[in-house]
Amino acid sequence: MTEKIVLAYSGGLDTSVAIGWIHDATGADVIACAVDVGQGGEDLEVIRQRALDCGAVEAYIADARDEFAEEYCMQALKANSLYMDAYPNVSAISRPVIAKHLVAAAKKFGATTVAHGCTGKGNDQVRFEVSITSLAPELNCIAPVRDLALTRDKAIDYAERNNLPIETTKSNPFSIDQNVWGRAIETGFLEDIWNEPTKDVYSYTDDPAFPPVADEVVITFEQGVPVAIDGEKVTPLQAIEQMNRRAGAQGIGRIDIVEDRLVGIKSREVYEAPGAMALIEAHKELERVTLEREQARFKREVSDRWTDLVYDGQWFSPLKRSLDAFIDDTQRYVSGDIRMRLHGGRATVTGRRSDSGLYDFNLATYDEGDSFDQSNAKGFIEIYGLASKQSTARDEKFGNGPTFGDGSSLNAGSES
Amino acid sequence: MTEKIVLAYSGGLDTSVAIGWIHDATGADVIACAVDVGQGGEDLEVIRQRALDCGAVEAYIADARDEFAEEYCMQALKANSLYMDAYPNVSAISRPVIAKHLVAAAKKFGATTVAHGCTGKGNDQVRFEVSITSLAPELNCIAPVRDLALTRDKAIDYAERNNLPIETTKSNPFSIDQNVWGRAIETGFLEDIWNEPTKDVYSYTDDPAFPPVADEVVITFEQGVPVAIDGEKVTPLQAIEQMNRRAGAQGIGRIDIVEDRLVGIKSREVYEAPGAMALIEAHKELERVTLEREQARFKREVSDRWTDLVYDGQWFSPLKRSLDAFIDDTQRYVSGDIRMRLHGGRATVTGRRSDSGLYDFNLATYDEGDSFDQSNAKGFIEIYGLASKQSTARDEKFGNGPTFGDGSSLNAGSES
Amino acid sequence: MTEKIVLAYSGGLDTSVAIGWIHDATGADVIACAVDVGQGGEDLEVIRQRALDCGAVEAYIADARDEFAEEYCMQALKANSLYMDAYPNVSAISRPVIAKHLVAAAKKFGATTVAHGCTGKGNDQVRFEVSITSLAPELNCIAPVRDLALTRDKAIDYAERNNLPIETTKSNPFSIDQNVWGRAIETGFLEDIWNEPTKDVYSYTDDPAFPPVADEVVITFEQGVPVAIDGEKVTPLQAIEQMNRRAGAQGIGRIDIVEDRLVGIKSREVYEAPGAMALIEAHKELERVTLEREQARFKREVSDRWTDLVYDGQWFSPLKRSLDAFIDDTQRYVSGDIRMRLHGGRATVTGRRSDSGLYDFNLATYDEGDSFDQSNAKGFIEIYGLASKQSTARDEKFGNGPTFGDGSSLNAGSES
Amino acid sequence: MTEKIVLAYSGGLDTSVAIGWIHDATGADVIACAVDVGQGGEDLEVIRQRALDCGAVEAYIADARDEFAEEYCMQALKANSLYMDAYPNVSAISRPVIAKHLVAAAKKFGATTVAHGCTGKGNDQVRFEVSITSLAPELNCIAPVRDLALTRDKAIDYAERNNLPIETTKSNPFSIDQNVWGRAIETGFLEDIWNEPTKDVYSYTDDPAFPPVADEVVITFEQGVPVAIDGEKVTPLQAIEQMNRRAGAQGIGRIDIVEDRLVGIKSREVYEAPGAMALIEAHKELERVTLEREQARFKREVSDRWTDLVYDGQWFSPLKRSLDAFIDDTQRYVSGDIRMRLHGGRATVTGRRSDSGLYDFNLATYDEGDSFDQSNAKGFIEIYGLASKQSTARDEKFGNGPTFGDGSSLNAGSES
Repeated sequence: MTEKIVLAYSGGLDTSVAIGWIHDATGADVIACAVDVGQGGEDLEVIRQRALDCGAVEAYIADARDEFAEEYCMQALKANSLYMDAYPNVSAISRPVIAKHLVAAAKKFGATTVAHGCTGKGNDQVRFEVSITSLAPELNCIAPVRDLALTRDKAIDYAERNNLPIETTKSNPFSIDQNVWGRAIETGFLEDIWNEPTKDVYSYTDDPAFPPVADEVVITFEQGVPVAIDGEKVTPLQAIEQMNRRAGAQGIGRIDIVEDRLVGIKSREVYEAPGAMALIEAHKELERVTLEREQARFKREVSDRWTDLVYDGQWFSPLKRSLDAFIDDTQRYVSGDIRMRLHGGRATVTGRRSDSGLYDFNLATYDEGDSFDQSNAKGFIEIYGLASKQSTARDEKFGNGPTFGDGSSLNAGSES
Repeated sequence: MTEKIVLAYSGGLDTSVAIGWIHDATGADVIACAVDVGQGGEDLEVIRQRALDCGAVEAYIADARDEFAEEYCMQALKANSLYMDAYPNVSAISRPVIAKHLVAAAKKFGATTVAHGCTGKGNDQVRFEVSITSLAPELNCIAPVRDLALTRDKAIDYAERNNLPIETTKSNPFSIDQNVWGRAIETGFLEDIWNEPTKDVYSYTDDPAFPPVADEVVITFEQGVPVAIDGEKVTPLQAIEQMNRRAGAQGIGRIDIVEDRLVGIKSREVYEAPGAMALIEAHKELERVTLEREQARFKREVSDRWTDLVYDGQWFSPLKRSLDAFIDDTQRYVSGDIRMRLHGGRATVTGRRSDSGLYDFNLATYDEGDSFDQSNAKGFIEIYGLASKQSTARDEKFGNGPTFGDGSSLNAGSES
Repeated sequence: MTEKIVLAYSGGLDTSVAIGWIHDATGADVIACAVDVGQGGEDLEVIRQRALDCGAVEAYIADARDEFAEEYCMQALKANSLYMDAYPNVSAISRPVIAKHLVAAAKKFGATTVAHGCTGKGNDQVRFEVSITSLAPELNCIAPVRDLALTRDKAIDYAERNNLPIETTKSNPFSIDQNVWGRAIETGFLEDIWNEPTKDVYSYTDDPAFPPVADEVVITFEQGVPVAIDGEKVTPLQAIEQMNRRAGAQGIGRIDIVEDRLVGIKSREVYEAPGAMALIEAHKELERVTLEREQARFKREVSDRWTDLVYDGQWFSPLKRSLDAFIDDTQRYVSGDIRMRLHGGRATVTGRRSDSGLYDFNLATYDEGDSFDQSNAKGFIEIYGLASKQSTARDEKFGNGPTFGDGSSLNAGSES
Repeated sequence: MTEKIVLAYSGGLDTSVAIGWIHDATGADVIACAVDVGQGGEDLEVIRQRALDCGAVEAYIADARDEFAEEYCMQALKANSLYMDAYPNVSAISRPVIAKHLVAAAKKFGATTVAHGCTGKGNDQVRFEVSITSLAPELNCIAPVRDLALTRDKAIDYAERNNLPIETTKSNPFSIDQNVWGRAIETGFLEDIWNEPTKDVYSYTDDPAFPPVADEVVITFEQGVPVAIDGEKVTPLQAIEQMNRRAGAQGIGRIDIVEDRLVGIKSREVYEAPGAMALIEAHKELERVTLEREQARFKREVSDRWTDLVYDGQWFSPLKRSLDAFIDDTQRYVSGDIRMRLHGGRATVTGRRSDSGLYDFNLATYDEGDSFDQSNAKGFIEIYGLASKQSTARDEKFGNGPTFGDGSSLNAGSES
């Protein structure tokens, strides 16, 4: 029986060529599988037909949009996940859901191998393969670009020689990955990190320097998840899509950083994630209102670990699941409304209200009649400061007492 | 001999009245001490004279601007210190340097007590008193507002009765603290957290919605500290001041959050810190270029602890010093240029270059002729993913294998 | 109506006197509540009667032994909770369960205040009061020793004057707290930290220097909790009790440390916790067999935070609950048998087996026929070491390359 | 010119054969380099001669004992480094110092490659190669066992065929690595993790079940490092050696765990490290006396990261250096005496004294006349517990209030 290989299919040149390339190299039948994670662009039925036209024995579309929004994007939102304090893990969270559907396709069609279009120096190959072998240890992975010497030039040549129904151009300078949570752009021009991105890099966002009039939005959260916008109920997918449109129109969510890849190198990355960035900003502020201080402090550590782990391709690891248990528990009271002004590249929180918040006007107010008993402060400070006080007394004893910037001892000028 | 008390003096109504109020309550001579941390406003010589006119036996100005910028603001910058991911610890880092000068004054004049103008429900009382007793365990602390029942109404009444040379008005709605690192604003109106700040709240920043033309700036860092702007050498103080002006003109650095106070309550705080926020943005990106990945990851944890510790008034604690040792070591190679565009509330990095960076074009590029050997990836992924693979195999064994959102098992549909 | 106060009653001198002392000072009726957390000693019915004889209007025994073992000790075991790497939080975990029953008593009898016997300089006052006001914010707390000047001398005097049915002796040198999880001893003699504990300090453990023959035990865990010993089913309470006896006979679990109290001072503490220490040792090894590496690494951090939080009296805090969610998730596969030898103060694991473990003989063995593909190592190492390699190259470039202990550069002697 | 390869040479069968094996496979001249890290055993001059007799063109002994003790063991001691809470990183800290001398030899002799005897499934290959390429990125690494198919059977065959002056036996069941910090033992018998180690496994330690009379020792530390034992000055090397003898005689420091290897598998490991374990126990207690609480808490996290990093072969990484800066700063006051009783497998601290300690008898004592003002406690507790109190009030409001084990609400029975 002929071996079967499931190929992660995007509809573009590389994976269209890969159908035949893999078949030629391995003799296997190729099943093309395109997973819809809200990347937009071409109609997926068109893509499906193209796969068949390029020689796939089966072509398969999985609509994972709601699943991706609900289980992947929302978990990233609850974690306020920003890799290196900047990047909302756009590609990193899409790989595991795509991998899951590739594995499902492999099981459905009895394939033994999953193929993907990644190179051998990026993060995505790791994310795909670790996810796939975590989900199905018996499956093999293959990457034509990395393992079968499929370069762009060879792909163009192959497509032209075989009359594949796909546009071939050597000049496309961009390498793009996009989904409903955002869009990632790499291009040779940006590999010089002193260069500024040009305007044609962006697609989800308009130029923040020339914004339309400000857009005020009220986002309602329940347990960390947006459930309504301006009073209208929304699903997670709808929430992200609407915020992509509205925040995108204001140029919100452009990101341009030098980033540490899992494989030990630094790379320049440009992203746009208008909906994600606006939702995270809102969610963070609602957490400030609803989380207890120490819980919030430790959650930052948990979120950083979650973020690194997911970036590093370990979505299906036991630690990820345990961190989720922590994060989910913290979201119990993260419910309420956040009002934001979207304008000129800025998503600014302008109001917050929550029935389950810990903000207590009567404790906080400096007006008369507050309920905070100030007489407790003296004893608190005395005990709270005791350890530092003893430590500095020891510093003095050993001649390590505090000094001024000029090196003079704080105690030198004492007249007493 | 009459006891002496050093009073932290701002020149405003409360501390002007406190001079006499403390004397009346305790019989002690009051020495007024104003510390210049770049707060601007009135001429300090005028303030000094006012203290004497209000009954101080001595009045004392300490110019701590460079010291504050070099030892306090720069350390906060190296830490990228943002409390709750938002607030650059503006007041928190000024309290210890002010405390140091109050203690120096107390030693100089033989005082036994230091007085300050804080209330009994905020952070600053803790920061002042823990700093003061850490630096000089033998000193006592007193806060007239908290300990001697000095309310605003009583202060106005006292000033009028005693003809103090200070304006008295009940209507000033704002409580302000400012220094070169930023400005903090509290006011009754903002205690309703659904209210948006009004325009009169701001002073360091212009409205970002109506910006002047974009301002491009190149900041040169050496070991984490800005040393030149647009090629002109600057001291830390000059760097902050210049960035305050330029970023402030573009409306950069406005912050509006609900914040966890050390004393266990949440409060609404509005800040503006144009220079600090722009410098931190630049410094963060330079770290992305120059820090090794794992060093950068752990530094986030160290910075979070540093930030919480400093917010909580523990500047002079042993842990703070040990964290500084870590942070300083990480800054060894944080040198180079960051180009930013300041415009409409946004400080956007547009270029970075560093002789000591770890970005390596030849490793990163997707062009041909790169120096990264992709054949290593296969072995890396195999070993890197081994633990997760074993874990998921165990999940399967115990019936806890992966499922889809609808609860169906990933393996249910297997035909093989 | 007369106010009612619930008193945490131990049956000892101090709390027996406190019944009348509180009544005299406040006019309130005192309800004595003794909570059985496995402290052993006197019959609780005797204690109950004594409370009545000393003037309590009600006396109340709550049997919290199973509850304490199941919900408090087992959670500490899952966390491998050792404060300062040494102390199994013996008293710290008993305070919240006692507080819960005091609050329940207060609600039952309509009391407005809860009284306890702690001093004003220890941890337990904080643990009691934070737990009580967390559980019932409307209740007040009072501590006669701290708040009503009840010293030991006054207590003896009061007891004698009022003929209280309790032994009065000034010479008892020990302050003891005990429950099924362990025993804490403080005494003046040990306040000199150069002094070694004398033999009469110990009660749960025999001298490890003269042990009986070694005792081999097999403990079976399910999801982190002991469910059988030597094949016999046990409840958590039974497991601890049996291990207390068996490990105690071997002198296991004596602890003698200088400890950081929550109130900012260091104190000398001696504990014995034979069952707890042996169970933790066994549980730790079972985790080594069953937890995935990164999960285990992060769990240490979570456990440290859990331990500090519980030591610090925050059992009922939101962070504690979220940490529990993490910990509980990690225990899913912590099932299997641990064989230990108990002998001469040592609880030594000698064997482990687990159906849900991740130890895989075929991967681990150095024998031929293993399933680990060594050819992957080369690629793994290359990529894994890439970042450090680049960093050291930078060090070289900037003259900070590696040196030997004598300061000579590693590269100085190069002949090439 | 003939290529040169430096071989890490132990004098045993595998590396003796490797000399010729490498030459045969590559044509290169082999330079044998043995590094003395206190492993004891054969005379190193004998080993040097054997290398020459086996065909090495040069043979080279580096005495790294003091360097290893001072820079590697002492840093591990300051960190209280115990991997997985158990293993003092015995082999892990020796690899970088050996690598350094291999690199120095390569530079001295103009070699292009370093060879080592590790297999392809353990940690040491990673530690060697990451250290080597970090120190000298231009060097290649080769491992005959992993890369040149050198099995034990082939080695015996080769040695016999070529009359190498080395004993050949197929029956040696143990794989041993030892140095002054400890000894690691692997053997097929122990790969069944239910098996207990047999007595012949141990060499550094006598049976703890039959100890000689107890041995009391006083260790004097300065800044975290032992400088005297029983009043006699010692170097770090001497301190470890003496403690190895004395603690070893009492059977202290046997370790038997299932361990997570860097390469993603679990393995059974047995170690003995009598000196290391006794010194760490003493050092930990001295830290309890001398470190401020928060500094100590965060140091645990730093030490865990240090330990994992070093275990994982990243000794020469930037993060390691920054963690060292933190650790070294914490050791400033870790000076004083620790008295220990060594007996029957236990190293028990029985006394501690330190001029730079933070233990303050006058604060700690429960005797009258203490200097702790208990009246501060009330205010402290009130503010300290405020956040938890508000949180539980919220739980109540949302019906998530505290319950008892049987599910009954704490508030259900309220009569009020």
